[in-house]
Amino acid sequence: MCRWLAYSGTPVLLETILYRPAHSLIDQSLHSKMGVETTNGDGFGVGWYGPDSDDGSPAVVREIGPAWSNRNLREIAGHVRSPLFFAHIRASTGTAVQQTNSHPFRHGRWMWMHNGAIAGFHRIRRDLALAVDPRLFPDIEGSTDSEMMFFLALTLGLEEDPPGAVARMVGLVERTGRAHGVEFPVQMTVAVTDGARLWAFRYSSEGASRSLFYSTRVDTLRALHPDMGFLRGVSDETRLIVSEPLGDLPGAWNEVPESTYGVVQPDGDEMVPFVPQAA
Amino acid sequence: MCRWLAYSGTPVLLETILYRPAHSLIDQSLHSKMGVETTNGDGFGVGWYGPDSDDGSPAVVREIGPAWSNRNLREIAGHVRSPLFFAHIRASTGTAVQQTNSHPFRHGRWMWMHNGAIAGFHRIRRDLALAVDPRLFPDIEGSTDSEMMFFLALTLGLEEDPPGAVARMVGLVERTGRAHGVEFPVQMTVAVTDGARLWAFRYSSEGASRSLFYSTRVDTLRALHPDMGFLRGVSDETRLIVSEPLGDLPGAWNEVPESTYGVVQPDGDEMVPFVPQAA
Amino acid sequence: MCRWLAYSGTPVLLETILYRPAHSLIDQSLHSKMGVETTNGDGFGVGWYGPDSDDGSPAVVREIGPAWSNRNLREIAGHVRSPLFFAHIRASTGTAVQQTNSHPFRHGRWMWMHNGAIAGFHRIRRDLALAVDPRLFPDIEGSTDSEMMFFLALTLGLEEDPPGAVARMVGLVERTGRAHGVEFPVQMTVAVTDGARLWAFRYSSEGASRSLFYSTRVDTLRALHPDMGFLRGVSDETRLIVSEPLGDLPGAWNEVPESTYGVVQPDGDEMVPFVPQAA
Amino acid sequence: MCRWLAYSGTPVLLETILYRPAHSLIDQSLHSKMGVETTNGDGFGVGWYGPDSDDGSPAVVREIGPAWSNRNLREIAGHVRSPLFFAHIRASTGTAVQQTNSHPFRHGRWMWMHNGAIAGFHRIRRDLALAVDPRLFPDIEGSTDSEMMFFLALTLGLEEDPPGAVARMVGLVERTGRAHGVEFPVQMTVAVTDGARLWAFRYSSEGASRSLFYSTRVDTLRALHPDMGFLRGVSDETRLIVSEPLGDLPGAWNEVPESTYGVVQPDGDEMVPFVPQAA
Repeated sequence: MCRWLAYSGTPVLLETILYRPAHSLIDQSLHSKMGVETTNGDGFGVGWYGPDSDDGSPAVVREIGPAWSNRNLREIAGHVRSPLFFAHIRASTGTAVQQTNSHPFRHGRWMWMHNGAIAGFHRIRRDLALAVDPRLFPDIEGSTDSEMMFFLALTLGLEEDPPGAVARMVGLVERTGRAHGVEFPVQMTVAVTDGARLWAFRYSSEGASRSLFYSTRVDTLRALHPDMGFLRGVSDETRLIVSEPLGDLPGAWNEVPESTYGVVQPDGDEMVPFVPQAA
Repeated sequence: MCRWLAYSGTPVLLETILYRPAHSLIDQSLHSKMGVETTNGDGFGVGWYGPDSDDGSPAVVREIGPAWSNRNLREIAGHVRSPLFFAHIRASTGTAVQQTNSHPFRHGRWMWMHNGAIAGFHRIRRDLALAVDPRLFPDIEGSTDSEMMFFLALTLGLEEDPPGAVARMVGLVERTGRAHGVEFPVQMTVAVTDGARLWAFRYSSEGASRSLFYSTRVDTLRALHPDMGFLRGVSDETRLIVSEPLGDLPGAWNEVPESTYGVVQPDGDEMVPFVPQAA
Repeated sequence: MCRWLAYSGTPVLLETILYRPAHSLIDQSLHSKMGVETTNGDGFGVGWYGPDSDDGSPAVVREIGPAWSNRNLREIAGHVRSPLFFAHIRASTGTAVQQTNSHPFRHGRWMWMHNGAIAGFHRIRRDLALAVDPRLFPDIEGSTDSEMMFFLALTLGLEEDPPGAVARMVGLVERTGRAHGVEFPVQMTVAVTDGARLWAFRYSSEGASRSLFYSTRVDTLRALHPDMGFLRGVSDETRLIVSEPLGDLPGAWNEVPESTYGVVQPDGDEMVPFVPQAA
Repeated sequence: MCRWLAYSGTPVLLETILYRPAHSLIDQSLHSKMGVETTNGDGFGVGWYGPDSDDGSPAVVREIGPAWSNRNLREIAGHVRSPLFFAHIRASTGTAVQQTNSHPFRHGRWMWMHNGAIAGFHRIRRDLALAVDPRLFPDIEGSTDSEMMFFLALTLGLEEDPPGAVARMVGLVERTGRAHGVEFPVQMTVAVTDGARLWAFRYSSEGASRSLFYSTRVDTLRALHPDMGFLRGVSDETRLIVSEPLGDLPGAWNEVPESTYGVVQPDGDEMVPFVPQAA
């Protein structure tokens, strides 16, 4: 299991979000409160969109050690500003600790990160691999269930219809798992983005999903906490989605309901029930 | 492309072979003379059999950086003695530099290492993966052609008939590659062992294989070089197989012919023509 | 702060001690119960004496990542047998996570490891460095207080009189610290060995030292727990010294008293009060 | 020995300079033509100034493996734009391969990088360390001669008078070395910057210094090569200083003379003889 955060809004130095909050993601790498594991030290990654890419694709920096002691992450976080970025800290559920198993995963302009697991993945990995579009298959670099979910979602139309593709991916994994005797195949919170919009999913086959929270609109927070400087510097629509709250600010965090996904987008956020589909 | 060596004979400290020769494997990591690349700095590994394993399986230590600067390799080499060991230094042909892509690969008591490449691997990776025994498939951890060749050979009977399984594996890769328009799919030198016997293969589809050498019998060498202390301490049957000679000792090294494999075994070594087989 | 263990006795596979106990050192790397930090993931090391060294010096393998996910440590532990070894997991108190800051430290036949800290080390580092024998000074490779303590102890006669040299080292650090306004300069548990005898120290300037335990004599334990197989295979004198107990076996663990050191040696172990000395 | 480059001018993506030239620094990490070593694979670093730092200090990302296979370096280089940056690839002359030994080194707004060596450094390291300002001493993190030179230069006034401080540093190292019987203590090319100006030094005690080149003014190059797109996008004053040329463009590269330093600055570059001074 893992912890992650997704930021969308006014461009900020990454460190504003990654290091400065009381219970920042870096703090969670050592002292997660809501995760299955207290420690998330099996690799990390950060991916950001910025003005300086040639083709609009995000930069993705991934490492194999713990985030809490990584000096390069702190350097990048202190000198890179972005309006949309992902950060992820990993606690391996068995697969190798290696760069290609750290999140976020990238395909063209798209980024994907995941907390959770496919139950019985070892047993159904081959069947899932066969379901990946043969043209995409050679690009699978790592050995995680998370990357496999990404490639299945890409196969099933992620770039055209993200919520539909994720629903079909979950349906496929559930059907495949159950065919192998796994009762509850999927446990997930997932974030995915194309650099413009951001989708976040909370779902598990047994209806007991890992925690997921989104931040209150900044104008509401600003009214509640007029003394907080940070809130004055960012737009009303600035939004954070996180595995667990970054601090105890009253009114700041709202739990994403079970079996739900949210969309963060320029023309108004949405929260929608999530139902797996037959692929 | 890569460099490797396999040792079988009187137990020696690994450093005797890995560090002390004039053109040792460690020297080859910086200054290979016969390799496609001068530098082999994309990971390394060493695997050894010893008296201290519970189940007869070898220890396999693999890393992602260059061998020449790795202090732990030197520590291990200076304190571990073994009668049968593999060492490998990697020059990636494109796949990720990660521990699961470093050689040797292990399955139970078996070890495998490879120099060369499957041409067009990116295109035929999926077809080859489908040919792997579904029970073995989930144990593939890395993304190299070398590991895929090992799993195909295991699928095709490596544990019962190593030369036959390797011949069938090569046949399968050639057929698959040619079906995708690859003229010369296989380029390889391979070493494989079960801890008792050791097989080494030299083959390429175009008949222009990477270099491979085996050492002259120690009793012959001893007669040629009565002043060499090392030769007095090891048995007549002690044997090295290497990608390139470890030094210039006259009479010490013999090239393995094209399309040939050798067996190092207690009851007499052999050299046999190698012909790919229809799988 | 850190966790460590020292083993002396019947040669065993390292994994017997490092991995198999219920609350093994590897478990402590994620879930320390008595340490200042729950997580000890800032590097680790293992040093062992064996029959296969040319000069009697130990092998020392040190890494920068967490022990819990390190495959090479598990490989070594599963294939190396030793009668005397150290293992250490690090939680940095601020200095860089790098191989030269991981314990144990080695000088010739000697090994040293430490849990604790020199308070105000940043301020007094230069004065302590000046007190190191100029002939030894260039061999300092890292930046930790722990390595500095080792080099000061070497300067003050460690190789001739270990308890006296450690007492003088502590006296020197306390005097230097207090000259810079540090009230309680030393917090330490230290293990040191020459490959034959093993000394373990528990001391802190304020009399509130980190925990330290030694195992009960095996003959006593065997009488208490006649069903435990492991105890039948090792000699009566086999001894473990640990930062925290490796499990809950009743009667197995005894706390080292405050301001005390113990000696594990062939002709009878000893426990002696420890008093810092003017250097 | 090492290779480095310093860029000052129109903001560019780092990859424009680090990866795209025919004989780029990344290519030099495998195939240096003018270096003492062909391979520079013992760590690397990149430091850049940008608009997004809070305090004007540069970001410094340093690693321990080879640059040629490092994916994070490529990610950063493809997404970070800077008007002034350093890049360095290391070939260790003996000290540990660790992050704190990779260049560039940073102190506040200042960066420093070095190619060369202090001869006999092991012997004179202590005397040099004693000459470092005691307030700066605790900030020395690594064990290289290069970092020591930086701290000596800082001690001797680098922030007020860079050329004078470097001249005094060299004078001090030469005097100290000669007192220990070292005939030619200093071999160096050094780059240092405060984020506004950039100084580059070429000097060695024996008058046989490592190579150093600076690029021709862009307006001259543009006249020579009207077809080169890159030259149209950058200002006339844009300048590169490199250990060895990045390609064969006729007229592009000029050797820095022996015992000389250059200044790249807004109000006109300069080239000045360099003479060590008594400290």
